[in-house]
Amino acid sequence: CHKVQDSLLSSASRFTDYRGIFNWCVIMLVLTHAHLFLENFIQHGFLVDLRKVLRLLVEDGYNWPSVYLILVSNVFVATALLIEKWQEQGFLSQRTGWVLEAGNLLVLMVFPTAVILHKSTSISVVGSLLSLCFYTVLTLKIYSYHDVNSWYRQGQVGNSGSAEMKEEQEDCPGRREYRDCLTLKDLYYFLMAPTLCYQLNFPRTRTIRKNFLFQRLLEMLILIQLMVGIAQQWIGPIIQRSECTFTNMDTTAKIEHLMELVAPNHFLWLILFYLLSHSCLNFIAELLCFGDREFYGDWWNADNLKAFWSKWNIPFHKWCSRHLYRPLLRRRLAPQHAELTVFVMSAAMCEFLIAVPLQMFRLWIFIIMILEIKVAYFLGHYFTGNYGNGMVWLCMLLGPPIAVMTYFHDYYILNKENSSWTL
Amino acid sequence: CHKVQDSLLSSASRFTDYRGIFNWCVIMLVLTHAHLFLENFIQHGFLVDLRKVLRLLVEDGYNWPSVYLILVSNVFVATALLIEKWQEQGFLSQRTGWVLEAGNLLVLMVFPTAVILHKSTSISVVGSLLSLCFYTVLTLKIYSYHDVNSWYRQGQVGNSGSAEMKEEQEDCPGRREYRDCLTLKDLYYFLMAPTLCYQLNFPRTRTIRKNFLFQRLLEMLILIQLMVGIAQQWIGPIIQRSECTFTNMDTTAKIEHLMELVAPNHFLWLILFYLLSHSCLNFIAELLCFGDREFYGDWWNADNLKAFWSKWNIPFHKWCSRHLYRPLLRRRLAPQHAELTVFVMSAAMCEFLIAVPLQMFRLWIFIIMILEIKVAYFLGHYFTGNYGNGMVWLCMLLGPPIAVMTYFHDYYILNKENSSWTL
Repeated sequence: CHKVQDSLLSSASRFTDYRGIFNWCVIMLVLTHAHLFLENFIQHGFLVDLRKVLRLLVEDGYNWPSVYLILVSNVFVATALLIEKWQEQGFLSQRTGWVLEAGNLLVLMVFPTAVILHKSTSISVVGSLLSLCFYTVLTLKIYSYHDVNSWYRQGQVGNSGSAEMKEEQEDCPGRREYRDCLTLKDLYYFLMAPTLCYQLNFPRTRTIRKNFLFQRLLEMLILIQLMVGIAQQWIGPIIQRSECTFTNMDTTAKIEHLMELVAPNHFLWLILFYLLSHSCLNFIAELLCFGDREFYGDWWNADNLKAFWSKWNIPFHKWCSRHLYRPLLRRRLAPQHAELTVFVMSAAMCEFLIAVPLQMFRLWIFIIMILEIKVAYFLGHYFTGNYGNGMVWLCMLLGPPIAVMTYFHDYYILNKENSSWTL
Repeated sequence: CHKVQDSLLSSASRFTDYRGIFNWCVIMLVLTHAHLFLENFIQHGFLVDLRKVLRLLVEDGYNWPSVYLILVSNVFVATALLIEKWQEQGFLSQRTGWVLEAGNLLVLMVFPTAVILHKSTSISVVGSLLSLCFYTVLTLKIYSYHDVNSWYRQGQVGNSGSAEMKEEQEDCPGRREYRDCLTLKDLYYFLMAPTLCYQLNFPRTRTIRKNFLFQRLLEMLILIQLMVGIAQQWIGPIIQRSECTFTNMDTTAKIEHLMELVAPNHFLWLILFYLLSHSCLNFIAELLCFGDREFYGDWWNADNLKAFWSKWNIPFHKWCSRHLYRPLLRRRLAPQHAELTVFVMSAAMCEFLIAVPLQMFRLWIFIIMILEIKVAYFLGHYFTGNYGNGMVWLCMLLGPPIAVMTYFHDYYILNKENSSWTL
């Protein structure tokens, strides 16, 4: 009936099968949040109202400055194509072409910023945020366009084409040449496509799956509704409870407030990630028969922050590696310095994208991102495997997303009397 | 730069590595509960006070009825040994022996119940609960003792020994005989040992590991403190908030109240499981050099309720299977009927163990356990694998533990004016 044996939970038993514990965690998480959810509804009632969100988008009566701003961008696109065409036909020397390209890109970045800061009374925050994101993506795309075209041109003129170009030329036959691709149609396809890196012949799918499109569209509608729900029902009451901005709060109030915001903010970011990186980009890709759907890696399994940053936004990571990191290496910069440069640039870009539309310059996002990379550098040796992954999740919970939230929190507090900002 | 590929989260990618999500769940769970914990402290202050618990144990001045009750049990033990000795020496016929054994066991069960119900004013609830559990375990052990000894006797008299006895005789040589084991020392070793099933030669370990003993002791001290903390800090305020018993509550109040109690109650049970089944039983086994430490299986991975019930308490499961299930099968009962009988008996025992000390007979535990087995029967075909495991966890969250909690809740409400019951 009995025999000598150890208990399963003793370390001597070498038992390691705890898969049931995962189910337990999920159930406990769902139940706890269901409870909080119910308590929230009992306390505040039903606060979700989509009309309030739509009102946020409407700006300055029927005169939509952000729409005009986005329409103007076509001028820069046309300029970029013209510069390329002239260079290809030999009207412009390489040097003049380079100066014109740099000028075009500089204006692309400065123009929307200037408009937003100048027209701050008539342009809405959501409108200016969207148009600034639009212009930033456009800048990155046009930069890639010029860069890749110059590689091809150099390959045509001499035979000193860069490694990237040669790689691409080794692909399948029956493909179009550099010269044939300098058309408005090709350029606009690239600008619409869910990628930041230009290439002559994008991989294409054969058909548009209507079912797939419909699923992505449904996901988008549901997730947007869910995000609005979280913002209005969960984050709204927390923010309304606070009476002053984070810059004026004392430390305990700050910590208490941030702790309350961590969970809803985190859910918001997870949904936003899925909405943008999966539903939205896949929808666009399916519409355009764009074949490469690698918009994100398995960042949820990342063991360290470096892996996380390189996996969570593949199009941006590809752009940085192709047009920033590798050119820096070719200029004999050490790899870790090149990495740091890329990271500092992306941190500055994040800060820029939030600070300009809200017109508050606090450097919080930039500082937190730089701090995080320091922390990752020091703790990366101690935390590996599952612990490293836990660190990554903690950095995601308490890192840049919460910095973004503090910006919006303070904006809300400062503009409380503005009726359109009732969450 | 690009190639045709699917997004990881598309079902077409066949990507299944989500191990990072487990870490996320654990972190979210810890953070959410840390937040609730902090809120609880801010709201109620520090309520944990071990002295209140110790006061619960002290009963009737310096006259401890439950201690006397436990000491009296030695009479029944001596009686059991005498009956066996007389039977072995041929003083008693098989039939008379059987009648005496049955009488001894019946008194073992009735006597403590009668004392508790009769002396209800002087005996404390905790004392009567402990002594009733003690007597129940003793009854099961003595039953096993008589049963096994009768197998050996039958093996000695004729050659018709049961299968269990033969199995045990096939073990290693150099072991003691049935006749030599009928001593007080052997009987008390079995009664102290962490098992319910008697056997002539228990597997033994060679040494007592002092380190192991110390670790288990430390675990016990910490876990008891933790349980007291959860009860006083988390459950206490919830129960104090309610004004009437569950029998008198309306349905919404009942559900709201139960939902609040589910999480702390569940944690309490998980800690209680570890405390009793791992720390406590391993401590006793190490002290007694008892070799078989299989006190629980991996019930956390159980896919269905049947597996859960057979894994979570191995000593009781072994006893049921050896002395109840298999004898019933030998009497040509169908396996599923034998199973049902065993389950109904254990449900009745659970109800008995809680209802008698609290002196409230509501059948809630019994009903919920029977309902659960019905649910398991109907849903077992649909929920398998991880979903089955999830069902098991849900049954554990909302099943018998919460029924036990309702008993204690109502007892507290009914005895509010009794000053010793301030949680």
